[in-house]
Amino acid sequence: MKVLLVYAHPEPRSLNGTLRDVAVKALEAEGHEVRVTDLYAEGWKSEIDRADFPALIPDARFKPSRASKEAFATNTLTADVRAEQEKLLWADTLILQFPLWWYSMPAILKGWVDRVYAYGFAYGVGEHSDKYWGKRFGEGTLAGKRAMLVVTTGGWEEHYSPRGVNGPIDDLLFPINHGVLYYPGYDVLPPFVAYRVDGLDEAGFEATAERLRQRMRTLTTTPPIPYRRQNGGDYLIPTLELRPDIEAADARGFALHLNGAIHQGNSA
Amino acid sequence: MKVLLVYAHPEPRSLNGTLRDVAVKALEAEGHEVRVTDLYAEGWKSEIDRADFPALIPDARFKPSRASKEAFATNTLTADVRAEQEKLLWADTLILQFPLWWYSMPAILKGWVDRVYAYGFAYGVGEHSDKYWGKRFGEGTLAGKRAMLVVTTGGWEEHYSPRGVNGPIDDLLFPINHGVLYYPGYDVLPPFVAYRVDGLDEAGFEATAERLRQRMRTLTTTPPIPYRRQNGGDYLIPTLELRPDIEAADARGFALHLNGAIHQGNSA
Repeated sequence: MKVLLVYAHPEPRSLNGTLRDVAVKALEAEGHEVRVTDLYAEGWKSEIDRADFPALIPDARFKPSRASKEAFATNTLTADVRAEQEKLLWADTLILQFPLWWYSMPAILKGWVDRVYAYGFAYGVGEHSDKYWGKRFGEGTLAGKRAMLVVTTGGWEEHYSPRGVNGPIDDLLFPINHGVLYYPGYDVLPPFVAYRVDGLDEAGFEATAERLRQRMRTLTTTPPIPYRRQNGGDYLIPTLELRPDIEAADARGFALHLNGAIHQGNSA
Repeated sequence: MKVLLVYAHPEPRSLNGTLRDVAVKALEAEGHEVRVTDLYAEGWKSEIDRADFPALIPDARFKPSRASKEAFATNTLTADVRAEQEKLLWADTLILQFPLWWYSMPAILKGWVDRVYAYGFAYGVGEHSDKYWGKRFGEGTLAGKRAMLVVTTGGWEEHYSPRGVNGPIDDLLFPINHGVLYYPGYDVLPPFVAYRVDGLDEAGFEATAERLRQRMRTLTTTPPIPYRRQNGGDYLIPTLELRPDIEAADARGFALHLNGAIHQGNSA
């Protein structure tokens, strides 16, 4: 299998750097082919701006989605963005690895999403009308592939538990798992989350590394989070609201969009 | 009153640019003093890296939180970051205005948070022990001030409704409202959200602008989202889990952290 690991930490000698190496080694030991996008090392540009669209008329009003659509259609996106899109098409599995900063991705990784996820590539795929709202949420360019987050945080697991002050980790990661990964078609595996990573001792590190190795070994067999497909019949079109007859047990909020058993505390 | 508006859109002639001008004008008409941080216009640097900490020893391992703590304590943060911190201290109210990209902030705004929210300024404030977990979530450097999001999105309001496919807007914005704004002490007002902004006609624009003006006029009187204070007695320390005797009606997920009435669909 082919795996792309997109990595966002500024210090190679960090815990994140070490865990990245652990993951790559474990994947290669399984016979997988691995490529790494090291955003900081490659000097990734984070901001979408006019420079991303060299074919844009200089004084024209800049509308990011329209510029993205035109540039993708005419193959005039910048070389760095095209290289990442090619890697995404190449890989069977995508891993995004990052420290949780302010309950989300570091800016540099958000900038990778904002720029690489072009119109026609990651969104704006398929018919868009009042009868069909695009190939997304379970369909799209990257359908049939798997994706997974590898996240580190200084907080305790309890702080991210169903009643923890930060909010449940699965809910905090929903905008990424569902909104960034499931959207263009990925089957999304439960995230790997390492808690209390500041001042991890050697035994703590080894336990974390072993847990990550285990996840890398089971990358092809771990069942994905059972998100509902947008076009699978559960949602009304065009309002895209869950059909009134679907009660989804007693789920609320994000959990409504899981088909069947509620996914909770499953982030090992 | 003093208002800081942090604005993240690359095109001044965009709907966002126009709405920013509408907001500034409405605030000034109320007699407020307004400053704007225009991240794109100012060429804001998005990525936290070693260059943010000029006092860092060149070959030392770079640990962002430790470097941030030392630089804040010794007043050696870079000038752009210090200027933003001064503006936050100056302002009674902070507004973050952005288009919703991939269910979150544009990278450039995330980079403003990542870099301006230094250790000792926005986190790491107050005692941190097994008895007291810092001044945060309702306390901290920015306590007593107000904050609010102004967000635009191409999707329909129904798509972001309690049963909409994207997830409820209040849940999607929770990592920002609760995790970025409430964390360092802000009272967080319900967000202003404009839906279906692509192809807004003149009447649609005027209705949106008027809704925004109304929110600007009521900035000082709108009741904030009733998040629970971390150190107000509702959470156990140090696990920071909601006390078992607090049933929070039948709330789940993020809604657990609201004190009293459930905030839902209140994003007008």
